[in-house]
Amino acid sequence: MGRVWPQFEAMSTAPTIVTAAVLVIGNEILSGRTQDANTHWLAGRLTALGIRLMEARVVADVEADIIAAVTALSQRWDYVFTTGGIGPTHDDITSAAIAKAFGLGFGPDPRAVAILHGHYKPEDRTPARMKMAEVPVGADLIENPVSKAPGFRVQNVFVMAGVPSIMKAMFDGVAGGLTGGTPVLARTVACTLGEGLIAADLGRLQDQHPDVDIGSYPWFRNGQHGTSLVARGTDPAELDQIVQGLTALIEAHGGVATIETLS
Amino acid sequence: MGRVWPQFEAMSTAPTIVTAAVLVIGNEILSGRTQDANTHWLAGRLTALGIRLMEARVVADVEADIIAAVTALSQRWDYVFTTGGIGPTHDDITSAAIAKAFGLGFGPDPRAVAILHGHYKPEDRTPARMKMAEVPVGADLIENPVSKAPGFRVQNVFVMAGVPSIMKAMFDGVAGGLTGGTPVLARTVACTLGEGLIAADLGRLQDQHPDVDIGSYPWFRNGQHGTSLVARGTDPAELDQIVQGLTALIEAHGGVATIETLS
Repeated sequence: MGRVWPQFEAMSTAPTIVTAAVLVIGNEILSGRTQDANTHWLAGRLTALGIRLMEARVVADVEADIIAAVTALSQRWDYVFTTGGIGPTHDDITSAAIAKAFGLGFGPDPRAVAILHGHYKPEDRTPARMKMAEVPVGADLIENPVSKAPGFRVQNVFVMAGVPSIMKAMFDGVAGGLTGGTPVLARTVACTLGEGLIAADLGRLQDQHPDVDIGSYPWFRNGQHGTSLVARGTDPAELDQIVQGLTALIEAHGGVATIETLS
Repeated sequence: MGRVWPQFEAMSTAPTIVTAAVLVIGNEILSGRTQDANTHWLAGRLTALGIRLMEARVVADVEADIIAAVTALSQRWDYVFTTGGIGPTHDDITSAAIAKAFGLGFGPDPRAVAILHGHYKPEDRTPARMKMAEVPVGADLIENPVSKAPGFRVQNVFVMAGVPSIMKAMFDGVAGGLTGGTPVLARTVACTLGEGLIAADLGRLQDQHPDVDIGSYPWFRNGQHGTSLVARGTDPAELDQIVQGLTALIEAHGGVATIETLS
């Protein structure tokens, strides 16, 4: 009775941090042919799930590069989400590379074969299409409601298609099974002052709140320039306090603070 | 007379390969607040200069992460272009991190100080703004025609602002001094066939042209699906031959080939 459990106290206040990386695989992104939009979409979704995107990489359709990147990211972060390179053509080498990265066998998965047989008439079951049933041994499949050929999960790595509509559907299918941490909340205060004017005060405010990440982003639009200040952290009360602090420092420099509802 | 110089023969036919990486530094990209457009723009410009973008990374405003990424990329690729984190606020830590990555001293550069003194009136020369004159010792400055505070180059690493308009102006200023390799040309042939139907023939065509990179990109638009086939290589005659091969294989499967002028 009345005993304080120090561990429980610590657990109840310290935020749980869950991290992720995105690995985009595809020559078309690096050549400038295609602009990657998957990373930005995943960043927003992961943030909403309480998962912090900590790193993103784009590599070419080169086996050694895929293996090196997925190994490094898988070892460092809690989750890795890859996009691209799981289609039927010769340049789709992601699945086999992931198997090699984890030292796993690789071949047709009976569940994936059944999915493709359900989708393609017998005369349309080309060897290239059936290649999309090949996954690392022991992988869990990720459903593809758009074009059926599944993605898969190996350990903490989720392997998804590069076509945005398919990638999004695959992610939405697995999102419910991800373990999120304490949600990171954001508050944005904008002003038309240059960031160089408020930087010193801003740095002091940051020093007072080491658990909150205060970012300063200059902008130029319609011939006007200004700064958006974004505070990101897990404690809503502390963020409200920082919004007050940001407003005060902007006003102290003769500016007008605009609190933006969305970050 | 008549002697063949093997070295010269080799030089005249083998393409010169020059590579690059992009390193985007900034929490705002990883949180999903901002969509990075700099990598796509740089990819297009580098390709046009005959420089092959081989890898891109996004890291947070964390010193150790910046150092690790810039070191890895600088050692592996011919050029590295970083964007973000060189402004006046506490979260702008790129410049100091680059100095540490190369074991260089770090402090105000007299040329950069003079630029900022020319831009800011004495009463506007806040310590935060003057921080933007601090670069690694021995760095070359990169001109910033937009907002004056310069970027810089250390060895093969070009450190640029994250604001797109400034980044583009900085890159355009250094582009003339970059050494490009043999330009990589692209030819695109599109069809409304699924890529799984043509994959086997496509793989054979790729096998016949190991020096050309043939990519297959499925698309879905206006309720129709199809495939864009992109051949990238340095020999225009070989690319023309591949366009013929792609057209023939599409027609052999009952499709209509559309040759796109731009990739």
